[in-house]
Amino acid sequence: MQFFQKTIQLPRYGRGFHLITEVVEREFPELRQLKAGLLHVFIQHTSASLAINEDADPTVRQDFESHFNKMVPENAPYYRHNDEGPDDMPAHLKAAILGSSVTIPVTGGRLNMGTWQGIYLCEHRNHVSGRRLVLTAYGSG
Amino acid sequence: MQFFQKTIQLPRYGRGFHLITEVVEREFPELRQLKAGLLHVFIQHTSASLAINEDADPTVRQDFESHFNKMVPENAPYYRHNDEGPDDMPAHLKAAILGSSVTIPVTGGRLNMGTWQGIYLCEHRNHVSGRRLVLTAYGSG
Amino acid sequence: MQFFQKTIQLPRYGRGFHLITEVVEREFPELRQLKAGLLHVFIQHTSASLAINEDADPTVRQDFESHFNKMVPENAPYYRHNDEGPDDMPAHLKAAILGSSVTIPVTGGRLNMGTWQGIYLCEHRNHVSGRRLVLTAYGSG
Repeated sequence: MQFFQKTIQLPRYGRGFHLITEVVEREFPELRQLKAGLLHVFIQHTSASLAINEDADPTVRQDFESHFNKMVPENAPYYRHNDEGPDDMPAHLKAAILGSSVTIPVTGGRLNMGTWQGIYLCEHRNHVSGRRLVLTAYGSG
Repeated sequence: MQFFQKTIQLPRYGRGFHLITEVVEREFPELRQLKAGLLHVFIQHTSASLAINEDADPTVRQDFESHFNKMVPENAPYYRHNDEGPDDMPAHLKAAILGSSVTIPVTGGRLNMGTWQGIYLCEHRNHVSGRRLVLTAYGSG
Repeated sequence: MQFFQKTIQLPRYGRGFHLITEVVEREFPELRQLKAGLLHVFIQHTSASLAINEDADPTVRQDFESHFNKMVPENAPYYRHNDEGPDDMPAHLKAAILGSSVTIPVTGGRLNMGTWQGIYLCEHRNHVSGRRLVLTAYGSG
């Protein structure tokens, strides 16, 4: 049984949905030591989130941004928490709906996702610096 | 510490929400070897998802289908990704909202869910063949 | 590699979103034995859920309650499952959207969340007794 853990800082991404599979794989080469295991990716923020979805057509990620803006609108009349601007409370809600972490099987030293799956960073704020992730991987070596 | 991993193919299910607890337990008898552990179930697709919810009354699962169709409608005017038909982009969004995996405690060789909990396969497309799951279980034996 | 598992009963909370980080830490002191690991928190119910979000301003949690009541309304005309009252089916839907578990890194014997992150119990029913959680923690000691 092996266990690896590491914190990384992502580069700054603008508001929207972004593929970060390659960043995670590059920053965490320890994954290659696992014959069968799991990778847990955790984002240490409450206004950005992580998801797994289609990694090919960029219009999918644009449609994610459009749909989440409709489903969780800015300036809803019932928001009380709006000190940090109209994108603040929607960002918290979107983050909870999508979730703060993803867990992915690792097999033969590689992420064992489906052909079209990738890891999304979901950036819900207009202006932020880079986000921090805690990566944890474990399994049989 | 024990670690098991296996890929299974589900039979074909129609669009909607389906209980798959028994399929998972039957296909992964290694679970019974764990005194205390966790089961991770991962779906290798971006237009179907997994959830845990009520396993008794089938109208709950019908209401899930109705509500998700309302909350994530087909033919929204802002969708750009619609090459594969009106059920395509909503399927990606529903999959991200519900999630690609569930993690469940295992205690005394059995899934340690609440009395009314079961594992749902959430099939968001109209026409697909069977979905692939990667099952990973680990813990003290 | 160490592995700990325990079931706890939460005190009764009213409908809404509640911080339970301190309860979890207090009830599971075994966490302190892990140099690097993960904590999995699982709720054994289908009408309450868990999330990670802002732990400072209480208006954030009030806005969560307002928004989820709008996004998943009571008495939707398409609900068939309503034997247990108007808060029943929305509770199941909210629980699936937010999820039945959270997984959090543990580093140096402490939960390794961001500065503003806390664990939310999301109570979606009007009247319930205390909820049960299964806590599982593992990693290198």
